[in-house]
Amino acid sequence: MPKIIDHDQRRRDIIEVAKRLILQGGFEAATMRSIAAEAGFANGALKHYFPGKESIIAATFQSVLSEMDPQGFLNEDDAPSGQDPVERLRERITMSVPFTEREINAGRVLLVLWEHAASNPELAETYRQFFSRWREVTIGLLRDASGGRDAVSEDEYDTLALELLSVTIGANVVNLMHPDGRFLNVYRTYLESFIERVTRRAP
Amino acid sequence: MPKIIDHDQRRRDIIEVAKRLILQGGFEAATMRSIAAEAGFANGALKHYFPGKESIIAATFQSVLSEMDPQGFLNEDDAPSGQDPVERLRERITMSVPFTEREINAGRVLLVLWEHAASNPELAETYRQFFSRWREVTIGLLRDASGGRDAVSEDEYDTLALELLSVTIGANVVNLMHPDGRFLNVYRTYLESFIERVTRRAP
Repeated sequence: MPKIIDHDQRRRDIIEVAKRLILQGGFEAATMRSIAAEAGFANGALKHYFPGKESIIAATFQSVLSEMDPQGFLNEDDAPSGQDPVERLRERITMSVPFTEREINAGRVLLVLWEHAASNPELAETYRQFFSRWREVTIGLLRDASGGRDAVSEDEYDTLALELLSVTIGANVVNLMHPDGRFLNVYRTYLESFIERVTRRAP
Repeated sequence: MPKIIDHDQRRRDIIEVAKRLILQGGFEAATMRSIAAEAGFANGALKHYFPGKESIIAATFQSVLSEMDPQGFLNEDDAPSGQDPVERLRERITMSVPFTEREINAGRVLLVLWEHAASNPELAETYRQFFSRWREVTIGLLRDASGGRDAVSEDEYDTLALELLSVTIGANVVNLMHPDGRFLNVYRTYLESFIERVTRRAP
């Protein structure tokens, strides 16, 4: 009886190998040859799953982006969940900022992928779609958490969402550059004061 | 009479070449060989100025960081300048966020350098020193612009400064990923609302 091969699992394994190699030695370390060797494949067998490095990088980008959203909230229905909207906002934004060692390390893979997206229109488009969805969902969270106060205009939600997404991206870089974690508590304070700003009654 | 060679100028020229190559083709494109060829040097002559790629990258990092501060305000004395402190804050923070094509492109070089700093302790230390000075100066600007209001504690200045620096870093990535500049105006609105937040009277 022929062995049953789970091709999807193999693709996932290959992506994990690529991610690990990038984490250890940057983009240059993740060659088709090194990925094949590390995954225990012949070079030709690897090409059965991914025709070239570009397609592995694209899949790795997708994978790292979805890791930033482990609970899949970007794909969630907009239907109210019953959860308190301020708690929901707090939970989701805390999830986005890198606090654990694993999340901080993932920032390094993101740096590599952003860099390559700068000269690869397809990767850039993948990121733009992710970013656009992330922004949209964040605006929805902010609107719910503010209780639909009239004092907050659509422009303000746009600005608050871009602020929050930018801080999250910035925190990726800052925490990666400061492995002693010296800014983690300041980011926690920032998130609390951000929530306070969004939810406080208009004067 | 022997030709007088301006060695400092040559070092600066080499750094500009490295920056241009990184901008065009990423870190891999900037090899000792390609830098020497592009700068019109023999490989051996290049080594007279920089013993290896690591030292060129370190010098390029320094150069890109000082470009982020073209007016040298990070090295300025803390002596009051006579300028209105709110205007001073506005001018400096607008300068830090990438708005022009040149500034947005510089973000790509930064991505490469951050990535390499993640596995190069010396580069990471260079960045930490820059970041620490940038943060310190920003806290000073915020304190002056808020008019020393009692309502603002030291912790709040720390949080506001980290917010602003993180947004600036995030804007580097976001603007690089969106070459159509669709978020430039939202960043302008953010900066104005940030200043409003810092300078407004306590309720």
